[in-house]
Amino acid sequence: MSSSSVAKQRLGQLTRIMASRKHRVTVIGSGNWGSAISKIVAENTAAHPQLFEPEVHMWVFEEQYQLPSTHPRFDVSKHSTPQELTTLINTLNENVKYLPSIALPTNVIATPSLPDAVRDATILVFNVPHQFIHSICSQLNGQILPYARAVSCIKGVDVSADSISLFSETIGRKLGIYCGALSGANIANEVAAEKFSETTVAYDPPGDLTPLPEELPPVDHGVMKALFHRPYFHVRVVNDVAGVSLGGALKNIVAIASGFVDGLGWGDNAKAAVMRVGLMEMRKFGQQFFSSCRSETFTEESCGVADLITSCNGGRNHRCAMLSVKEGKKIEEIEERVLNGQKLQGTSTAREVNMFLKQRGLEKEYPLFTAVYLILRGEAKVEDLPKMIERE
Amino acid sequence: MSSSSVAKQRLGQLTRIMASRKHRVTVIGSGNWGSAISKIVAENTAAHPQLFEPEVHMWVFEEQYQLPSTHPRFDVSKHSTPQELTTLINTLNENVKYLPSIALPTNVIATPSLPDAVRDATILVFNVPHQFIHSICSQLNGQILPYARAVSCIKGVDVSADSISLFSETIGRKLGIYCGALSGANIANEVAAEKFSETTVAYDPPGDLTPLPEELPPVDHGVMKALFHRPYFHVRVVNDVAGVSLGGALKNIVAIASGFVDGLGWGDNAKAAVMRVGLMEMRKFGQQFFSSCRSETFTEESCGVADLITSCNGGRNHRCAMLSVKEGKKIEEIEERVLNGQKLQGTSTAREVNMFLKQRGLEKEYPLFTAVYLILRGEAKVEDLPKMIERE
Repeated sequence: MSSSSVAKQRLGQLTRIMASRKHRVTVIGSGNWGSAISKIVAENTAAHPQLFEPEVHMWVFEEQYQLPSTHPRFDVSKHSTPQELTTLINTLNENVKYLPSIALPTNVIATPSLPDAVRDATILVFNVPHQFIHSICSQLNGQILPYARAVSCIKGVDVSADSISLFSETIGRKLGIYCGALSGANIANEVAAEKFSETTVAYDPPGDLTPLPEELPPVDHGVMKALFHRPYFHVRVVNDVAGVSLGGALKNIVAIASGFVDGLGWGDNAKAAVMRVGLMEMRKFGQQFFSSCRSETFTEESCGVADLITSCNGGRNHRCAMLSVKEGKKIEEIEERVLNGQKLQGTSTAREVNMFLKQRGLEKEYPLFTAVYLILRGEAKVEDLPKMIERE
Repeated sequence: MSSSSVAKQRLGQLTRIMASRKHRVTVIGSGNWGSAISKIVAENTAAHPQLFEPEVHMWVFEEQYQLPSTHPRFDVSKHSTPQELTTLINTLNENVKYLPSIALPTNVIATPSLPDAVRDATILVFNVPHQFIHSICSQLNGQILPYARAVSCIKGVDVSADSISLFSETIGRKLGIYCGALSGANIANEVAAEKFSETTVAYDPPGDLTPLPEELPPVDHGVMKALFHRPYFHVRVVNDVAGVSLGGALKNIVAIASGFVDGLGWGDNAKAAVMRVGLMEMRKFGQQFFSSCRSETFTEESCGVADLITSCNGGRNHRCAMLSVKEGKKIEEIEERVLNGQKLQGTSTAREVNMFLKQRGLEKEYPLFTAVYLILRGEAKVEDLPKMIERE
């Protein structure tokens, strides 16, 4: 480390020691990924008392839940009728509905009211299904601190024929604050079970933000790492918010291609080839449409190459595409049968990205993305994939 | 394409049209990978008659082989006793011993004599087990054209405490010619069955080589692509011979790490994380010890990231490491039981690389490589992997 960066680090440390207030962190969302992130964040707020208040509010969309009588802590005097989910979470320290069997730290406080959950929060972590973002941001307007900082754990980007926007941008714009992103090879249940994994956090606030009060530690890469890094969850912090967000979205198109190839029984060479070509198209897309995108975010970080690997080895997009080829059925039929009402992200992303590229006359520059779209439409055959992606 | 590169390409095309002689290609080696490459090369010499003589000699280490009576073309009048393998290959157009059930083009000529096989050959393709290289080069000395060019398909590098050398360098030095390299996500049987795959060819001859006679087309990236590219076998040609060679060797250490993780049942996140960290160490190693190594060879090419993916998804290193953890046995025990006398390359590469790094005091800069070595030695536990590779 250079002496100037050592000096910078020391200055940061001193500033934190002198800060008289601490960050208050709220997680907005409590599905399995939201609950897993709440667990991590709460472990870290407890581990870094010089930076954070220990209590972490987790906003929970309130619902009634009947605890199964097979639950090890089922108590007939309390649980014979449906209970509020927040009550169950706070008394059992477990999200019994969305992340069962995982002990949550006692400093995770499930909170049913959005305004209560975010009151005085200086760091907001968003982890909700993307279709709820607009409505949640509307409800948050006027409720949050003007100098709050945010991180979005929502995978995917908002693509239309005219534009692409990152969910972190949407959140930031709607709330008038800065929002970074967290994405990586992060299957929620594995992270919750403390099976080793990595992630990438992107955080690069502009200089003209509403400043934090001086009593608060500055929110920098060090604070992001302190908030998310665990011995079983390794964090790398980068600046490239667009790259981190795009990786999580575009990989789903590639996962469909790899499922097609597996469906044909073409083997490991073909799958690795499709993944490599897909990774290159993901990067090209990022660099063509987001000037801040860095090549390395795709080729070197967990949110890029590693997330692609997990998605192409398993995951619903891969599985449904594989079954559609094996059974000779449309992917929509498979989706309906195996996903139990959930929707494939890869098919919609493939369609949206194609619409966006077609609008610009750029379909041919993305032969794999285009091939996936055409195969999904029934306008090309999987067997033609090698020819479609062959270059001069 | 820029106008200068268009002009360069046209000049190359014209030169080839005007060349009155054609390249004669010989493949040295006839295992399953050697036979698969011979098939590809012979398909291409036939497809590009302006560049190549159609006949491709494939040097075969002669042996007697008894054709099984179940072979579809078994003829009791000819095959009731063991035959010479070359005779069987040339009459049945199939390497019945090492690549059974795959039709070889009729222009592949199996040749038992090494001097006969290489006589007048202007392009030599090496595809033999690495332990035979020294002996074969000794036998070839004085037998080959001084202006022959070579390509090595041999994966791995020659590492000792003192030095690392590429097999392509060994071949080039011993024969006084230039030797490039071919490596990628290329499981031989899949390539032979024409299942789609990609590969990387590295070719970057120095300016002071014995020049080719003017009647021969210059051997450039275009000729390399013409020789190896097929509709089912996509080729990218690069300059980085060291990177291409190292990828094929170092990936085996990472495949062992990924096998360990799978053995523990840690899931897809952990495996992708280990692969990503391993890829970064592979690249760092290349760039630290070979000044010509390019980052992109590892992160973007088939010989790098894609070959790593196939090796970590299957392959013997991954499998043996996984079983050793699952069964709580030493990897050598598993190796002996499941590999039928063949040897794991990953364990020896891990040991050699560790010896090389230790000599230079650099073990800590390669925490994953070092962890794999220590776990193999029984000096560390797989469970400690996350901690061992955790960085500040």
